Amino acid sequence: MIKVGIVGASGWTGCELLRLLLQHPQVDIVAITSRSLEGKAISELFPNLLGQSLLVFSQPKVEVLSQCDLVFFATPHGVAMQQAPKLLNQGIKVIDLGADFRLKDITTWQNYYQIKHSAKAWVEKAVYGLCEVNRNKIKTAQLIANPGCYPTAVSLGLKPLLEANCINTSTIIADCKSGVSGAGRVANMAMGLCEASESFKAYGVSGHRHLPEIKQSLSDVANTAVDLIFVPHLLPMIRGILATIYVDLTQDLSNEAVFDLFTQAYKNEQFVQVLPIGSTPETRAVKGSNQCHIGFYVLSPQKLVVICALDNLQKGASAQAVQNMNILFDIPEQTGLSQIATIP
Amino acid sequence: MIKVGIVGASGWTGCELLRLLLQHPQVDIVAITSRSLEGKAISELFPNLLGQSLLVFSQPKVEVLSQCDLVFFATPHGVAMQQAPKLLNQGIKVIDLGADFRLKDITTWQNYYQIKHSAKAWVEKAVYGLCEVNRNKIKTAQLIANPGCYPTAVSLGLKPLLEANCINTSTIIADCKSGVSGAGRVANMAMGLCEASESFKAYGVSGHRHLPEIKQSLSDVANTAVDLIFVPHLLPMIRGILATIYVDLTQDLSNEAVFDLFTQAYKNEQFVQVLPIGSTPETRAVKGSNQCHIGFYVLSPQKLVVICALDNLQKGASAQAVQNMNILFDIPEQTGLSQIATIP
Amino acid sequence: MIKVGIVGASGWTGCELLRLLLQHPQVDIVAITSRSLEGKAISELFPNLLGQSLLVFSQPKVEVLSQCDLVFFATPHGVAMQQAPKLLNQGIKVIDLGADFRLKDITTWQNYYQIKHSAKAWVEKAVYGLCEVNRNKIKTAQLIANPGCYPTAVSLGLKPLLEANCINTSTIIADCKSGVSGAGRVANMAMGLCEASESFKAYGVSGHRHLPEIKQSLSDVANTAVDLIFVPHLLPMIRGILATIYVDLTQDLSNEAVFDLFTQAYKNEQFVQVLPIGSTPETRAVKGSNQCHIGFYVLSPQKLVVICALDNLQKGASAQAVQNMNILFDIPEQTGLSQIATIP
Amino acid sequence: MIKVGIVGASGWTGCELLRLLLQHPQVDIVAITSRSLEGKAISELFPNLLGQSLLVFSQPKVEVLSQCDLVFFATPHGVAMQQAPKLLNQGIKVIDLGADFRLKDITTWQNYYQIKHSAKAWVEKAVYGLCEVNRNKIKTAQLIANPGCYPTAVSLGLKPLLEANCINTSTIIADCKSGVSGAGRVANMAMGLCEASESFKAYGVSGHRHLPEIKQSLSDVANTAVDLIFVPHLLPMIRGILATIYVDLTQDLSNEAVFDLFTQAYKNEQFVQVLPIGSTPETRAVKGSNQCHIGFYVLSPQKLVVICALDNLQKGASAQAVQNMNILFDIPEQTGLSQIATIP
Repeated sequence: MIKVGIVGASGWTGCELLRLLLQHPQVDIVAITSRSLEGKAISELFPNLLGQSLLVFSQPKVEVLSQCDLVFFATPHGVAMQQAPKLLNQGIKVIDLGADFRLKDITTWQNYYQIKHSAKAWVEKAVYGLCEVNRNKIKTAQLIANPGCYPTAVSLGLKPLLEANCINTSTIIADCKSGVSGAGRVANMAMGLCEASESFKAYGVSGHRHLPEIKQSLSDVANTAVDLIFVPHLLPMIRGILATIYVDLTQDLSNEAVFDLFTQAYKNEQFVQVLPIGSTPETRAVKGSNQCHIGFYVLSPQKLVVICALDNLQKGASAQAVQNMNILFDIPEQTGLSQIATIP
Repeated sequence: MIKVGIVGASGWTGCELLRLLLQHPQVDIVAITSRSLEGKAISELFPNLLGQSLLVFSQPKVEVLSQCDLVFFATPHGVAMQQAPKLLNQGIKVIDLGADFRLKDITTWQNYYQIKHSAKAWVEKAVYGLCEVNRNKIKTAQLIANPGCYPTAVSLGLKPLLEANCINTSTIIADCKSGVSGAGRVANMAMGLCEASESFKAYGVSGHRHLPEIKQSLSDVANTAVDLIFVPHLLPMIRGILATIYVDLTQDLSNEAVFDLFTQAYKNEQFVQVLPIGSTPETRAVKGSNQCHIGFYVLSPQKLVVICALDNLQKGASAQAVQNMNILFDIPEQTGLSQIATIP
Repeated sequence: MIKVGIVGASGWTGCELLRLLLQHPQVDIVAITSRSLEGKAISELFPNLLGQSLLVFSQPKVEVLSQCDLVFFATPHGVAMQQAPKLLNQGIKVIDLGADFRLKDITTWQNYYQIKHSAKAWVEKAVYGLCEVNRNKIKTAQLIANPGCYPTAVSLGLKPLLEANCINTSTIIADCKSGVSGAGRVANMAMGLCEASESFKAYGVSGHRHLPEIKQSLSDVANTAVDLIFVPHLLPMIRGILATIYVDLTQDLSNEAVFDLFTQAYKNEQFVQVLPIGSTPETRAVKGSNQCHIGFYVLSPQKLVVICALDNLQKGASAQAVQNMNILFDIPEQTGLSQIATIP
Repeated sequence: MIKVGIVGASGWTGCELLRLLLQHPQVDIVAITSRSLEGKAISELFPNLLGQSLLVFSQPKVEVLSQCDLVFFATPHGVAMQQAPKLLNQGIKVIDLGADFRLKDITTWQNYYQIKHSAKAWVEKAVYGLCEVNRNKIKTAQLIANPGCYPTAVSLGLKPLLEANCINTSTIIADCKSGVSGAGRVANMAMGLCEASESFKAYGVSGHRHLPEIKQSLSDVANTAVDLIFVPHLLPMIRGILATIYVDLTQDLSNEAVFDLFTQAYKNEQFVQVLPIGSTPETRAVKGSNQCHIGFYVLSPQKLVVICALDNLQKGASAQAVQNMNILFDIPEQTGLSQIATIP
């Protein structure tokens, strides 16, 4: 059994992580921590856990967390960079679901997150936990920066094309749409049912925090600098991300050729499904699962639309974190992640 | 033109009131006030008003408000009782959409609202603005206590029966359901799309603030003390209230007899529609309008279910406030209130 | 491995059943049948199964189905009574998720379902599969009539009270609310997003088909004839049932006494959670799980409100069918049913 | 009073048109027709009209309709081209909300709609009713082809740029999202709440019927052939369209320069609002109104994103049809269209 701690289990990614780990056959949750909820039973916060777990929130103390084999940080940015190094220095493994260790370029990180980074040395050592891209590096990592939801969707949608070197890497447009849970569990009027349901809008158009992360992730895959336009939108629903990605092909490719490219690239991946030609991904088909569905349309000899759907709290956050844990501890990758998406 | 001021225009009832008054042919909005939003254009807060109004929030100063013929308070409880008396003492008319002047029994009010009442004398003078019940008193009132949403629905559903003296007044059960906008425009996690959509629950079961108001309203109509069980529920939608009311008949009544009773009682009312026998009200049929739809089923010779639907922000709040204004200023009652509900 | 067949796998209960059985460690799905979808891959109908199952629809032939140990009917009423007897006569076990074998009184059944019953002998032998009530009978049954969603919710909410003989059995009122999936997977305008979302209404007030089933179920538990008023409503959401049940106590009971009654009655049940005094069930806390949450409020010495929440497609249909299968085949009851509800 | 008839009043655009015309001070609705609903009261179909209108459906007979000054066709494609010519030949004006007279190129129309066109002569005479573009032609038209919802959104978003000749007209990408009501009032499982809510997907990627209409509309404005990529998506909500349009600027333009361009272009338009720099349109801000909100972001010296929001049933269909009527009959353009969008 892997002894696990969760720092910041009171948000949506923490809630989903708990739910997954409680059902994981090889995990023993040792501690869940929250500064403000000490002593509170987890089922008081998340009523779905009534009768499923007797865990109680405790203070995030190093003494307790250092008994773990692995500590997840499901905290807002700025927390893990403060608390994780103490654990890392004791040899404990860490998976950070937040943004602290994702960007290699510290200056860019500080510009986008507007605070000073306090653990730069660990940024360098961190492995970006996009499983389908960095599986080998993850196996031997000590610190994993779990990817953001948008970067996961866009990267998985473009990986086969970038590797095949068949698209223009400076004219990519990613028009992305996310459910409200992506904004986190916060008391925010704009995420209230009265404002966020029965409405739709773009946000963060002039520069979302995931923009540099997407660029870095794509550039790593392409082995060359990749640029893109990224416009995120807020969907009137709880879960799900759909990325509609527009790319210019640098060679004439048929639908069949693109299909081959994608199926070849993902033939060994359990969590990526390439849809048949002419099929279109829908977020409901991946809701509550770690699956990523990819479809595409060649619209003219040189224009391709790739559409990628995933559950922002699963493959886009907590389930990918569990997938990273499985890789890290050399457990079959699908362990605890075989849930089939809920329809309807 | 009636010169109108709105204190507390930044909530949902304020927003709806503004929208209605801006389209009212005989109203001139002189001032909208908010302590925290001074200087802000109304369209910054409510983007539907972009290009529709140049109103700017100001401080709630007596000097400004005392130039009005009528001041609406769309404030949380406790505000109007502090600020309205100064205006009332100058002869200005006031309609309070909050709860401060609704309950005649000050002790009960203080128990339910947990603060000391500071304007008891005005409570006595206030007229409860349930238009279909108190129209004559409203005409000559100076201060109107605009009814709560649940009390309006339950009172209109039971009025014909109470007046006909044909139901047991101590065994009434009102199982009520409201959209989320009833909770007000507040940053409250429980009203977030992630928690309030795709879910349903009861709340306030052990004693909602509208309970004593409903009892008082029904007792006034019945001219005798009425008791009831009242359980409110939260619907995963923005607008709409549906009250399902269970009553014991004290005489055998057929569906036809009940239909006659209701149509007779409401034959002159423009904002109450009695549905044909066998028809069931739906909240979508009243959404965005001041209409109240009532249906009913005789389930056994002595058991009747009455179902009443209205829009909690319209007939349940702001549109009824405008209806009260129209009565007060002797304008045709439907002025500015002829909007037909939006389907779909 | 239990060899299983599913007749009528193209509806919502069939879809949910498939999802559960595909993840069940002791089940081998031999055949899924549909008259109209022969030859179609299951993932073409339900995209969440892409990459999860290669099952293909076949005609519902006896030759194929008779190779099964157990056949589920997830069909509209009228189908199982035609097709199940042939299988039953060969000794195959059958669980009918439809209504054909639920009502012992054939005349009542024929009145409510408006067709002639063609398998009356099997009605008598069928066991009503409400697991927490009939566990022992289920163990040795050949034919199980899987309960309706509303009857499950109301029965579990009242069982401890009826057994304790402490409520008036002729004045019960069950005000029930269900998500749209309860209406089945049908092309019905009234269940369209444009009509069913952002609205709420009652339906079937004058006599829903679950009414006689609830009466029979409660009467069986109480060992005496039970009557009730039952008003179902349609919630603007996909999944979830909440039953708000009003009962008259025949003795003075405190909240503590009621709590003891319920916890005692359900102390050995894994799928029923009694909430702490003062807590209120919400459907989101059981969404996607086989759990049933029960809360209650003593409103006056003699008046009690019981609130019961479950997922209509899980405990209200397919997961309870799996629970019945587990009992029937002497497998630990929670096998394949340990999924924790999805929040958010 | 303008005597008006509506053919096909039983769909969503018909319902919205009725609602608008019933509140229009200068319209007298003479007849509403439907082949299948003859004799049915309009309020039986649309319960929001209970007590608001006594109109009854009749057969679409020429004798009745020829008494009108104006006949609206709110029918599926293929109907107006059959029935309208008889009325047009008698000098009656016609506004077709369907697609029959929108495309000047008959071959393209026949390819996309897969039927033979039966009124080609009238196609030539028809004026494309995009009010802000063709106002002068509309004034003297006899037959108006009311634009589709997507074409209206994309055209209004690009008009100022095309007129200023400052964008590349062959690299435009329009990523569009629409609420479910755009699919019409049809019993379609895919538009059911269970499938369409809490999900998101693209559709019609390989060639939506609005594609040639958008191209024609943009080309007319630009006075040169315009090409674009158009990908529509289905939003889990009832009303609203948001178009996110990506264009390549052919000259360096600042946000201020673009703002000037847009405000100048729309300075006299009552139904188009240009948002302040940095503001982002949301569909809720136009829901239930004839308003179109436009925002934009210069993302690099040569890359611009324009975002355009409107209500697909109002400015995208029925309200624009009323606006066309007002222009046609020389009534102030905002008559009957001053409704402010409903928030929340």
